[in-house]
Amino acid sequence: MTRVIIIGAGNVAFHLTKAIKALDSVSLVQVYNRSKEVFKQALYTDLATTTQFNELLDADLYIIAISDNSITAVSEKLPKDKLVVHTSGSMSMTAISQQKRGVFYPLQSFSKAKAVDFKEIPFCLEARNATDLKLLEELAKALSDKVYLINSEQRKSLHVAAVFVNNFANHMFYQAAELCKNYNVPFEILKPLIQETVAKLDELSPSEAQTGPALRNDTKTLAAHLELLNQNQQEIYNSISKSIQENHGEKL
Amino acid sequence: MTRVIIIGAGNVAFHLTKAIKALDSVSLVQVYNRSKEVFKQALYTDLATTTQFNELLDADLYIIAISDNSITAVSEKLPKDKLVVHTSGSMSMTAISQQKRGVFYPLQSFSKAKAVDFKEIPFCLEARNATDLKLLEELAKALSDKVYLINSEQRKSLHVAAVFVNNFANHMFYQAAELCKNYNVPFEILKPLIQETVAKLDELSPSEAQTGPALRNDTKTLAAHLELLNQNQQEIYNSISKSIQENHGEKL
Repeated sequence: MTRVIIIGAGNVAFHLTKAIKALDSVSLVQVYNRSKEVFKQALYTDLATTTQFNELLDADLYIIAISDNSITAVSEKLPKDKLVVHTSGSMSMTAISQQKRGVFYPLQSFSKAKAVDFKEIPFCLEARNATDLKLLEELAKALSDKVYLINSEQRKSLHVAAVFVNNFANHMFYQAAELCKNYNVPFEILKPLIQETVAKLDELSPSEAQTGPALRNDTKTLAAHLELLNQNQQEIYNSISKSIQENHGEKL
Repeated sequence: MTRVIIIGAGNVAFHLTKAIKALDSVSLVQVYNRSKEVFKQALYTDLATTTQFNELLDADLYIIAISDNSITAVSEKLPKDKLVVHTSGSMSMTAISQQKRGVFYPLQSFSKAKAVDFKEIPFCLEARNATDLKLLEELAKALSDKVYLINSEQRKSLHVAAVFVNNFANHMFYQAAELCKNYNVPFEILKPLIQETVAKLDELSPSEAQTGPALRNDTKTLAAHLELLNQNQQEIYNSISKSIQENHGEKL
């Protein structure tokens, strides 16, 4: 049975710990975190935990799920001859100092308060050799129905794409909510439209689904909209409208 | 029984015609369109249709569902003493020349090919007098569970907010799809994240849901992302990142 140790107790580490703990096919040997406060949470009460690297037990796989900047330094404190992976979308596999290294990146936005269904979370895997990749693949498939082999360059592009669909799309929702607040309209009114915007992706590509005054080059509406916006919103409005026109010009 | 005539046969008019035709409480008297081609569709085969304004029948409510620029001109061809409304998010109620005028705006993105559930579509209503508003309200409530009284100024702000959540959010998905294409990664991998981005709005405000490198002012990641983007994407990336930082600075 594969023995796993998880390094970290932040959002990703927390949800991974919970999911791996629930697996029958894997033994979650231990969890490391630099401070012991988090271990008071119910999840950790029946797990072996430590705040000391020199107390780490033996395992087949060490999963580093901590902030990007600390991955290399932490990997250097782990056994030199074991398989060590990180869970970051933006760091290269070479951030791990071990020869047996890899990446185990769950492409999802985690927050501790919100339960996640791991079966639906895509796992992006990478490893230096086939045996290690196979071990990662078995673990990922035990957790999720969506497992992909993705190299470091592809993963970096996925990470910036994730910023567009998650952080930036959410900022569009934020600006809409601000407009609603300013004009005393409930943001709720927009929820069905938001849901439809995403539902359309089941049938159309984002390119096919594009509509709106920028696409139609409806200059009258574009000008009327700009009048309702603050400077910040105007900058966004202009840069995205310009991009829509430059990318979909052939549709006009 | 309220007698309704629909002017137009575009996306909004098509779906409205279909939904109103299905109501028992309302009589859909006639549909006007400037060209007769569209009337060959199954929806219109058992409806009275015309391409001539002088053939319009008598009704209690005339719904103009055509492009913004033509609303005023078309309203001038309709009976002077009847209730006439338009379905536009961005046009003022005064675009209608009749004294008995109003707005009947379904806030949703329509495409002919895709069926819509009107029960979930918010209707934004406006009228000059209480009797007319009551008639619009009865019709809207027969179609939808979500009926709002929204004045012209509020509606304009909603329309630009709708551009942010629909057109602009979709363009974020488009840019992500472009990145996936360029780096040979299936766009499918991002779908669960897109769904989660929207699902979070059930529990958190967009402000609370905001995450990402711009929010954290993670300059290293921001710089790495910019290297992967074309000029167009860089402009969007910079303007939105700047806006996230200016609007959520207090979170840092």
